[in-house]
Amino acid sequence: MTKPVLILVEPQLVENIGMTARAMMNCGLEELRIVDPRDPWPLHDELQQRMDAASSGADAVLKSAKIFETVPAALADLNYVYATTARSRDMTSRTMTPRAAIPDMIGRIKAEHKVGVMFGRERTGLVNDHIVLANARITIPLNPEFSSLNLAQAVLLIGYEWYQAQDVTPDSRIHTGSSRPATREEYLNFFGRLESELETAGFFVAEDMRPGMVRSLQNTLQRAEMTEQEIRTWHGVLSALISGPHRKKASP
Amino acid sequence: MTKPVLILVEPQLVENIGMTARAMMNCGLEELRIVDPRDPWPLHDELQQRMDAASSGADAVLKSAKIFETVPAALADLNYVYATTARSRDMTSRTMTPRAAIPDMIGRIKAEHKVGVMFGRERTGLVNDHIVLANARITIPLNPEFSSLNLAQAVLLIGYEWYQAQDVTPDSRIHTGSSRPATREEYLNFFGRLESELETAGFFVAEDMRPGMVRSLQNTLQRAEMTEQEIRTWHGVLSALISGPHRKKASP
Repeated sequence: MTKPVLILVEPQLVENIGMTARAMMNCGLEELRIVDPRDPWPLHDELQQRMDAASSGADAVLKSAKIFETVPAALADLNYVYATTARSRDMTSRTMTPRAAIPDMIGRIKAEHKVGVMFGRERTGLVNDHIVLANARITIPLNPEFSSLNLAQAVLLIGYEWYQAQDVTPDSRIHTGSSRPATREEYLNFFGRLESELETAGFFVAEDMRPGMVRSLQNTLQRAEMTEQEIRTWHGVLSALISGPHRKKASP
Repeated sequence: MTKPVLILVEPQLVENIGMTARAMMNCGLEELRIVDPRDPWPLHDELQQRMDAASSGADAVLKSAKIFETVPAALADLNYVYATTARSRDMTSRTMTPRAAIPDMIGRIKAEHKVGVMFGRERTGLVNDHIVLANARITIPLNPEFSSLNLAQAVLLIGYEWYQAQDVTPDSRIHTGSSRPATREEYLNFFGRLESELETAGFFVAEDMRPGMVRSLQNTLQRAEMTEQEIRTWHGVLSALISGPHRKKASP
């Protein structure tokens, strides 16, 4: 699937361009356009180094970045453009959250339209003359009393939503390392042995309390979603406790 | 609702602590705990200034931040702890995406459990001895070929998901500034006038094409979801075009 183009308008600090490239690469985005950066392009050596350092290795994005003199030139080939804005402004427009904008964007991309997301300069953001060149606005819902976001962080949040929309990671999973989740039989074998050893040890003082107590122990360990390896380890724990020197010492 | 506590383990750079505070405040989070920071606390003046500058005004979070010597001490009063990790490790544990972890977290908070999210030091992340002190892990799905995230950016993404879960901003809305969306009647009045003026101007060369042409014009403008103010402006545009000096000049 084609990916959205990101357009930075008049970025002032090369560090922010570098961090933008990093955030883009974190999120699998590749095409960066830069309109009228404060420092003339190509950058002289020291600025280039500062930008590269801030990008933490996202060179591929920086190397293929294209520089434009004006916003209309940077948007010329795009079919649909989103403008990111922090505040609402007195201009009629469709405004979306990032989470709603991404499915909208994906729908357009699947229809083979070329889409872009435009970010304004640090501190001031996009001016109305640039916003009006976009089809819709994206405003990130954040603490209204403290919503100022670094340029690269705004890029990261849009990119994050883009990446999540394609991502297939299960919401929640048990990572079991090199082992596998224990089977019911493995669990029940362990509980059976534990119960029998506890009986031998005189743990069940009142017989009528026993079923509830056993259920409670089972419940604890089942909630832990143990692996086959862990069950074996707990068998070892049990063997050690019933036969080890500690126990022999404790009950002379 | 109580909010999650954020715990930074062994942060190395005061700038990252400052940026973390900023990201927290962006997302309405307040309680920060710091375990064994590289620079001794309280910071000497120059480091304090660098941290404050990076926080962009999120002083409230920094001022109330608490310092701990060990991870167990920092987690002592918490009922449930999430550890953020970049890679999967050979240790069995529940791993969630941020998007799945937040509802889980909110459920626990509503049950009046105190929850925290732990972040490891820059570059290395959390070590296994710290991860095992948590109940579950959060891994942010990102480009597997370039997933290294700045500490404050990881905090921002978790905080962003937290904020979105509480936020009531409509997914998509038409921001109409000081005006209101036009009514059907206002639209139809304008179309009626436009059609009649176009007829006068001889726009409809073939009568059988007329209904389709009128529908197409209506469709364009209705899709724009105009405000009452914009309808009035377009009435003005129409008036100007039919009577202005430009037209008089163009048809001598």
